[in-house]
Formats: sequence, structure tokens, C-alpha cells
Amino acid sequence: MAEIISGTETSKKIQAELKDEVTQLKSKGITPGLSTILVGEDEASKVYIGQKIKVCEKLGITSFHHKLPANTIESDLLNLINTLNNDPKVHGILCQLPLPKHINTDKMLLAISPDKDVDGFHLLNMGKLLSKKSMKEIEEEKMYLPCTPHGIIQLLRRANIPLSGAEAVVVGRSNIVGKPVALLLMAENSTVTICHTGTKNMAEVTRRADVLIAAIGKPKFITADMVKDGVVVIDVGVNRLPEGLCGDVDFDKVKEKAKAITPVPGGVGPMTIAMLMVNTVKAAKKLSGVR
Amino acid sequence: MAEIISGTETSKKIQAELKDEVTQLKSKGITPGLSTILVGEDEASKVYIGQKIKVCEKLGITSFHHKLPANTIESDLLNLINTLNNDPKVHGILCQLPLPKHINTDKMLLAISPDKDVDGFHLLNMGKLLSKKSMKEIEEEKMYLPCTPHGIIQLLRRANIPLSGAEAVVVGRSNIVGKPVALLLMAENSTVTICHTGTKNMAEVTRRADVLIAAIGKPKFITADMVKDGVVVIDVGVNRLPEGLCGDVDFDKVKEKAKAITPVPGGVGPMTIAMLMVNTVKAAKKLSGVR
Repeated sequence: MAEIISGTETSKKIQAELKDEVTQLKSKGITPGLSTILVGEDEASKVYIGQKIKVCEKLGITSFHHKLPANTIESDLLNLINTLNNDPKVHGILCQLPLPKHINTDKMLLAISPDKDVDGFHLLNMGKLLSKKSMKEIEEEKMYLPCTPHGIIQLLRRANIPLSGAEAVVVGRSNIVGKPVALLLMAENSTVTICHTGTKNMAEVTRRADVLIAAIGKPKFITADMVKDGVVVIDVGVNRLPEGLCGDVDFDKVKEKAKAITPVPGGVGPMTIAMLMVNTVKAAKKLSGVR
Repeated sequence: MAEIISGTETSKKIQAELKDEVTQLKSKGITPGLSTILVGEDEASKVYIGQKIKVCEKLGITSFHHKLPANTIESDLLNLINTLNNDPKVHGILCQLPLPKHINTDKMLLAISPDKDVDGFHLLNMGKLLSKKSMKEIEEEKMYLPCTPHGIIQLLRRANIPLSGAEAVVVGRSNIVGKPVALLLMAENSTVTICHTGTKNMAEVTRRADVLIAAIGKPKFITADMVKDGVVVIDVGVNRLPEGLCGDVDFDKVKEKAKAITPVPGGVGPMTIAMLMVNTVKAAKKLSGVR
């Protein structure tokens, strides 16, 4: 039976560490501030933003929420971002995706100052991620790593899963999860394979994995026959089924073969929010010149 | 016996296509211009720059060469780049690496206008590469791809090597070759594995490859027992031995098992220069607003 890697528990630990850090920063007169922007009425987005604001409160991070109507014109959104870029109380800016279709997402992402880009989605920050050779270089640069991939690495590290020399297989090649987590695993010295919808003999590839990252977006896609005994499985999927939330992994069956596995919910999800807070505190230190 | 994939021949075809394009551009009053910068006296760098200038001449691209002494101070180099950024006759800027140690390479790369970054090394252009999902998206964006990885893809495509669904193994995780070529192969729908010095059982991994990219920097590192029958091998290595240039692949032995293989010299090398010219012509069109 697999060890269950709890994102809920790990994120609590990270939050406790951050809370101490925020207290210290406040004693120096610095209160980390996160601006959140929600355009429109997407229900899932509202839930995500609500969770983020709640964790900010818990940690003593000030959150500034901007709720814009669905018919907001692009230039108004860009103007708001520009104002926030220049607001010294704001250290991080997060505009919840997806945006309404009449707004160009790429333009919005480029408008956020790279120094306040706590989601790590600005092209300059993505370029930095691509250009770094090791976790040491990444950590020295104090860069903003994208939250979900960073959360995955933290989960694996804190569960003492050996990554150096491991065969890691990432299923999914998205910009938000698949490709960046592959780069981070490579920086951790894993041998990394990325597979996707174009992959032939998917099961043959996934069965090679010592560490398997499932980021496909299809409920229970990874079945027990697709993993080897003793695999470590990180399930990034969040699929809403009539019977409730469900991951990309057939949890009940796969956990019988795995050495360790994350549940859904309570796995990667809470880690994503925790890493957003990590980036916000990092931004507050960076922008205030605190070491 | 393997088909020999000749970079020399393929680059000649690409150069012929480019020459026609340059002629057309000139008839519209646009002469593509490439500025090359060499700091110091590195012998290999001199050879590379010389080759690039020679191909420019052949294609009708104007080259502006700037030779700076090894003790050039960083701010003088950055000022030169700034002047070239603002020079309408200059469409592409290339500063030969490596730079003398007292100059910060990252700073230099960021100083080049992303619109004139024909090496594709600016963080914004690297970020773009990371963010694109398919070759179609990459081509629509008319972005500057890094020359060696782009040259490898062109070699494979023009040799009619099937990439979609293929298992591609990249040996080496450099910023200049390994990681970007892995991204491009993924965009071509290959299942991609990146291995490196941290990889255990390297031969086991490389034997899975339908397409093997060797970018390690160690002479004859890839031996015949490390490949399967029918593999396609692209050798990116350029190692200077007393007996002459030699790749990262034990060519004589591996070619007996391979379906196709590139030689060294005459493989990837000429393609890198050809793709630099592709980027320069693309830059001239982009900056002059020609479609």
C-alpha cells in the first residue's frame, strides 16, 4: 500500500514557515501585498481566487482584489495592471485565467511587471526557467517559478523522493504544468520523458517511470497497468465528475502498486496556492531590497 | 548502411532559397543586414564569425563586423549594441560567444533588441519558444528559433524522417542545443526523453531512440551498442582531436546500425549558419513590415 503524499499537510508546513517570514518582514515595516484580478463570472475562477485571498489573510499578506465585469475592454485591464505595477504596496499581481475571449491573454501576461509576476507566466520568467542549468542556479536567481510545477517539486522533495538519476515521466506538455515541471525535474538531475496525445504506446512509456507526473486533464487516465511496482505518482488532474472531484489517475487501483501517491483533492492543489504565497513573499523581499 | 544526411547539401538548398528571397527584398529596396560582434581573439570564434560573414556575402546580405579588443569594458559593448538596435540598416545582431570573463553574458544577451535577436538567445525569445504548443504556432509567430536546434529540425524534415509519434532521445541539456531541440521535437509531436550526465543506464535510454540527438561534447561518446538498429542519428558534437574534427558519435561503427546519420564535419554545422541567415532575412522582413 502506497504512502499518501498529502499536499494539504505539506502546504500547511510551508504556510507556517511563510507566516513566520511575514511576521519578520512586518517588523521591518514591510507587508507583502498581492493584487488579484478576476475578469467575469467564471465559477471555478471565483473559487480559486477566493481560496488564494483566504490564504493571504491567514499568512498576514495583504490582498487587493479587483473584480472586473466580463465585458471589460482590454485597455482598461492593461491600465489597471499598469497602475498596480507602479503601486509600491503591491508586490505580486495575479490575473486569474482564463480571460474572456475578447482579451488577449499573451498581451495581459506581458503587461505584468516581471518583478511582480508571481504566477511565473511572463515570457521573461519562462525564458529564465528555460535558461537555468540546475536547481542551485534557479535558487540563486531568486526567480519566480510557476506555482504548480514548483509545488510538485516541493512535494517530492519534502517526501524525500530521490529525484537525481530517477526516470521521470511527465504526461502532458502544457505551458503551465507539463513543460515547466519537466525542466525542473531535469534541473533536479532526473532523466525526463515528456509524453502527450501524440505518443505511441503510452503505457510502455509510463511503465518506465520511477516518478510519474500526470497532467493530462482526463479523469482516471492513468490505470494500474500503466505503472510499474514502486512508482511515485503525482496527480495534477482536477476533473469535476457528477460524483465529485477526481484526478488523472485511477487512484484506488494505482495506489496498490505505487510506493507513494498524491490524492485528489488534497494533493497538488493546495501546493499551488502555497507556492503562490512563496512567490509573493519573495517579491516583497526583492522589491524592498531585503535579503 | 546508413543514408548520410548531408548538412552541407541541405544548407546549400536553403541558401539558394534565401538568395532568391534576398533578391526579391532588394527589388523592394530592402537589403537584409547582419551585425556581427567579436570581442577578443578566440581562434575558434574568429573562424565561426568568418564563416558567417562569408555566407552573408554569398547571399547578398550586408554584414557589418565589429571587432573589439579583449579588454573592452562591458558598458562599451552595451553601448555598441544599443547603437545597432537603433540602426535601421541592421536587422540582426549577433555577438559571438564566449565573451571574455569580465563581461556578463546574460546582460549582453538582454541588451540585444528581441526583434534583432537572430541567435534566439534573448530570454523573451526563449520564453516564447517554451510557450508555443506546436510547430504551427511557432511558424505563425514568425519567431527567431535558436539556430542549431532549428537546423536539426530542418535536417530531419528535409530528409523525410518521421517525427510525429517517434521516440526522440536528446543527450545533453544545454540552453543552446539540448533543451531547445527537445522543445522543438515535442512541438513536432515526438515523445522526447532528455538524458545527461545525471542519467543512469544511459545506453538503455539511448537504445529506445528512433531519433537520437547527440549534443554532449565528448568525442565518440555514442557507441554502436548504445543505439538500436534503424535509428536516425544527428551528431551535434564538434570535438577537435589531433587527427581532426570528430563528433559525439562513433560514426564508423554507428553508421552500420543506423538508418540515417549526419557526418562531422558537414552535418549540423553548416545548418546552424544557414538558420542564422534564415533568421536574418526574417528579421529584415519583420522590421520593414514586408510579409
